Amino acid sequence: MVASARDVPQATGTQGAFREQLVDEGFLLPSSVPGVTGQGPAFVDLRQRLDARISSLVASEQAVALEFPPVEPRHDLESVGYLTSFPQLAGSVFAFAGEEAEALQLGEKAHRHEDWSGHLQATGLAMVPAACHPVYPALARLGVPDSGITVDTGAAWVFRHEPSDDPCRLVAFHMRELVRADAADRVGAWRDAWRDRALAFLQSLGLPAAVDDAHDPFFGRTGKVLARSQRAQKLKFEILVPVGGDAPTAVASFNAHADHFASVFGLGAGDGEVHTACLGFGMERCVLALLFTHGTQVDAWPADVRSELGL
Amino acid sequence: MVASARDVPQATGTQGAFREQLVDEGFLLPSSVPGVTGQGPAFVDLRQRLDARISSLVASEQAVALEFPPVEPRHDLESVGYLTSFPQLAGSVFAFAGEEAEALQLGEKAHRHEDWSGHLQATGLAMVPAACHPVYPALARLGVPDSGITVDTGAAWVFRHEPSDDPCRLVAFHMRELVRADAADRVGAWRDAWRDRALAFLQSLGLPAAVDDAHDPFFGRTGKVLARSQRAQKLKFEILVPVGGDAPTAVASFNAHADHFASVFGLGAGDGEVHTACLGFGMERCVLALLFTHGTQVDAWPADVRSELGL
Repeated sequence: MVASARDVPQATGTQGAFREQLVDEGFLLPSSVPGVTGQGPAFVDLRQRLDARISSLVASEQAVALEFPPVEPRHDLESVGYLTSFPQLAGSVFAFAGEEAEALQLGEKAHRHEDWSGHLQATGLAMVPAACHPVYPALARLGVPDSGITVDTGAAWVFRHEPSDDPCRLVAFHMRELVRADAADRVGAWRDAWRDRALAFLQSLGLPAAVDDAHDPFFGRTGKVLARSQRAQKLKFEILVPVGGDAPTAVASFNAHADHFASVFGLGAGDGEVHTACLGFGMERCVLALLFTHGTQVDAWPADVRSELGL
Repeated sequence: MVASARDVPQATGTQGAFREQLVDEGFLLPSSVPGVTGQGPAFVDLRQRLDARISSLVASEQAVALEFPPVEPRHDLESVGYLTSFPQLAGSVFAFAGEEAEALQLGEKAHRHEDWSGHLQATGLAMVPAACHPVYPALARLGVPDSGITVDTGAAWVFRHEPSDDPCRLVAFHMRELVRADAADRVGAWRDAWRDRALAFLQSLGLPAAVDDAHDPFFGRTGKVLARSQRAQKLKFEILVPVGGDAPTAVASFNAHADHFASVFGLGAGDGEVHTACLGFGMERCVLALLFTHGTQVDAWPADVRSELGL
């Protein structure tokens, strides 16, 4: 019954040893399912300090804080085409809607750790795979002013079903996103300015960060075409930092959507065409990059990095 | 395919009008699924202020901060008996594990908003229904010192499948929990002391709060026996505040587990028997109680309440 991990990156390079160290030292609290990991006090502290530092960085945006649960309407996930591009990553929420006799069977199977999934039905909910997803239908309701709008999602939980032993490839993790909805000719510049600002910020934390074209894991043969098109059109950039794997790890991304989300949800600003873009920090990956770069003895981190994080 | 709402409380009293006002004034951002609701800037601000105030209240506990994702191993949910008590509330995560030909079918059905749930299989993950759930297996790994331990989960997202128009009955919401694992004779006193401290705290925010025995929605006929037993043994208390419904709404709860979680996950402290207890603040319900009690003009709230929240 369990959906198997397939074509998912496993730990490479020194990722496995790094992960073991983080577990031994109490930064990470693994569960019995790969990629579903609790966070110990020192990890939580670093993640919150990084979040506060990003808040300072974002202050100039006068962003509107909109926060959303980790589940979204399945209908919205369908509307934006996620199931075509990334069917393997989507999580769907199922629940029990039967009567008492069936509930007893379900309970007994669960008690014996047997398969009770046949008693469940799909709900109208899917796991949120990117923090910006619920922002677009909310903006359709709130309206986009002529001067554009920036939304800050805060550090939101997102879900991608790609279980792995790579400590950077979590099934559930925090993504903090800024979303910009504005006239087409202003959105691209906004995205590029934030890419440069975020790169400088991550470098100020002593991270050997660099920008590259994104390599999203689009599914299947059609996906290879989508991935090539994404790169050719420069739709998405990533900031990469080495975190022990064979290749550097993306810790932030910068994505221009043209009118995709705006047309799906009917965003408009006066007579002009609205485009959207977003940027996201992978909060856990940023913390892991700091721990990999500077070591797990946080007291011994470079003074300027400690100062940046208020340590 | 959609699991239907059944036996779930609908809006009563003035709940419906209160919810409409909160939506109109931008506190809540409803999605197309009942109970799955985004939060506007003023709501986020109040929730964060309340969270900070609870952090001050908790400081004396020297609690260990452990944070967990909104999904947990299904095996753990089975082990603690949740599927026997609350099968109707549990959410299970399903995913796609097929090959490309089937992915194309799935994508086409999703594009047409048709039922694609038949292409999914259960994963090893369930939605976390209470913030304390992942704490117990983590404590089994970390160990419980002889002097006991208090864990602070922070404001964690939890999930209960009971869609409703009652603004207080969200499918996904933040619960901030403290968990105590200690010798049996000390855990009860800890729970009772926190019940009294939380009551005084909520009253200091001007809320007409009162303590009562808990009324958990145990499922079916067997559930009625479980509910009676819970009340007879004084296992769980709630703090209730009127939020527009026919009856007051529980905004916090205080739960003694005896050795239930300790025995399931093998918690031990030296030779003594470990018991556990937890308390949880329903963060959104606390904010809603404040808005219902004091009105949606936050500037006009009583000076002492504004001062408590740093407004």
